[in-house]
Amino acid sequence: MELAMIGLGRMGANMAERLTRGGHRVHGYDPGEPARRQAAERGIAIAESLQAAVAALPSPRIVWVMVPAGVVDDTLDALLPLLSAGDTVIDGGNSNYKETMRRGARLAEAGMHYVDSGTSGGVWGLAEGYSLMIGGDAGAVEALRPVFETLAPAADRGWGHVGPSGAGHFTKMIHNGIEYGMMQAFAEGFAILERKEAFHIDLQQVAEIWRHGSVVRSWLLDLTSDALKKNPTLAGIAPYVEDSGEGRWTVAEAIDLDVSAPVITMSLLERLRSREDDSFADKLLAAMRNEFGGHRIKQG
Amino acid sequence: MELAMIGLGRMGANMAERLTRGGHRVHGYDPGEPARRQAAERGIAIAESLQAAVAALPSPRIVWVMVPAGVVDDTLDALLPLLSAGDTVIDGGNSNYKETMRRGARLAEAGMHYVDSGTSGGVWGLAEGYSLMIGGDAGAVEALRPVFETLAPAADRGWGHVGPSGAGHFTKMIHNGIEYGMMQAFAEGFAILERKEAFHIDLQQVAEIWRHGSVVRSWLLDLTSDALKKNPTLAGIAPYVEDSGEGRWTVAEAIDLDVSAPVITMSLLERLRSREDDSFADKLLAAMRNEFGGHRIKQG
Repeated sequence: MELAMIGLGRMGANMAERLTRGGHRVHGYDPGEPARRQAAERGIAIAESLQAAVAALPSPRIVWVMVPAGVVDDTLDALLPLLSAGDTVIDGGNSNYKETMRRGARLAEAGMHYVDSGTSGGVWGLAEGYSLMIGGDAGAVEALRPVFETLAPAADRGWGHVGPSGAGHFTKMIHNGIEYGMMQAFAEGFAILERKEAFHIDLQQVAEIWRHGSVVRSWLLDLTSDALKKNPTLAGIAPYVEDSGEGRWTVAEAIDLDVSAPVITMSLLERLRSREDDSFADKLLAAMRNEFGGHRIKQG
Repeated sequence: MELAMIGLGRMGANMAERLTRGGHRVHGYDPGEPARRQAAERGIAIAESLQAAVAALPSPRIVWVMVPAGVVDDTLDALLPLLSAGDTVIDGGNSNYKETMRRGARLAEAGMHYVDSGTSGGVWGLAEGYSLMIGGDAGAVEALRPVFETLAPAADRGWGHVGPSGAGHFTKMIHNGIEYGMMQAFAEGFAILERKEAFHIDLQQVAEIWRHGSVVRSWLLDLTSDALKKNPTLAGIAPYVEDSGEGRWTVAEAIDLDVSAPVITMSLLERLRSREDDSFADKLLAAMRNEFGGHRIKQG
């Protein structure tokens, strides 16, 4: 198929390359000149402006938007005047599903299709294919089948139309919430192994043993084993963990739906905790213990 | 090699069969006549008594014990009078590592070797091989190499000598703690998807999509997909989750070592919670809300 890829960051450029290799005609655009140049060096056809990318497309047009969640609306504001009824825009990023539903309604008023594709696979997706959770009208999704078949690990697996507009990003949000919990479980387990000094356990050896035949075998364990091989003591890595939104949206959604999701919630809270280097709560706890029991306060 | 397999339950019988198929000479014994008969039907050579199983072995003897954690000491009490210095006993079950260390010291006094093999793989281990985390003296472990190479998924992977006596069971305990957290994360995520009724999400379809290319791909996800395929609404399954000890040992160990492991801990607590059908704490909370705010109490 012929489509534009707007946003050539790590994810967008890899997806454009996978689509190009798969025989699709991709017109890539990124507002940053270095991103355009790097994409061109990887064999992706580049447009020098958003207008040029869209003008190159046959009608009805297909535009895949792969930009940070914070600039989707700005991108749509620039894009929609260039499009016509019958065209399709796909948001393949990590947008909040409620915003996706709002944007879908906006495009529907103009007679355009808006498809949300939750996209998992990270930097390995280029080689291995992406897991794609797709929301939107059945007709619009079906029309894009060749694109999804190329991006996925294989034509018949790793992608699917999961529901109406927003359902793809909703499903991806939950995927990331689960990911938080799995990561935290591995992190805690290895931390206990590491602390058991009497046994001198080689963490990377254990990760390798578990990769074959164990109940916890998983891609995250493969990556953990890689990380421990490169850096067995995690030297130079600060104990500071960012989050990019999907975890907190999952927790808020669980509460909205009256679903108790303590482990996913706790995994998010542990990331917040990792960033506190001067916890007011911890200081207050120490002060309380001093008040009622005369327990010593560590000076800070 | 030639060895006795004491305990022919689900795990023991499967391991005896995998060893027999792998060319080892296994003398299987179980105190239950039906277990012996079923094992014999699967091609495992059976001894009619513990004495006979041990008597059949060349010296130095190798005895693999695969019995529930609660009867390991009774099994050793019956077994040790039949053994001599230089013999090796392997505990392949889910024993608490502290008891393993105590038993290892007991056998060492008699000049025998005690090897602990944490064994993961469940009912799939027969076909796919087991992940084996092995503790004990290096010499005793090395002498058993052909046995481990056959039980593991391949001779060169999925097994390893991780440390001294107890280290194998310690590592398996942590493995199971991680497993609790991963299971709980998946369970919570699918529960949120299920509750989002407006999207009518097909949980099994989502599990299948995630199995290919996603960050959460894992053997537990494969099994979850299987379970949802067989029974999409989980009809007939009570929301009641047992535990078999390793989770609570992991939590106790984390506390002993001053390691904060909230997600593994919470995963255990959720299992305890699942068994409360008449929570005193919940009733007391309702009573308190009634006291301070006049909030309605649901009659029970």
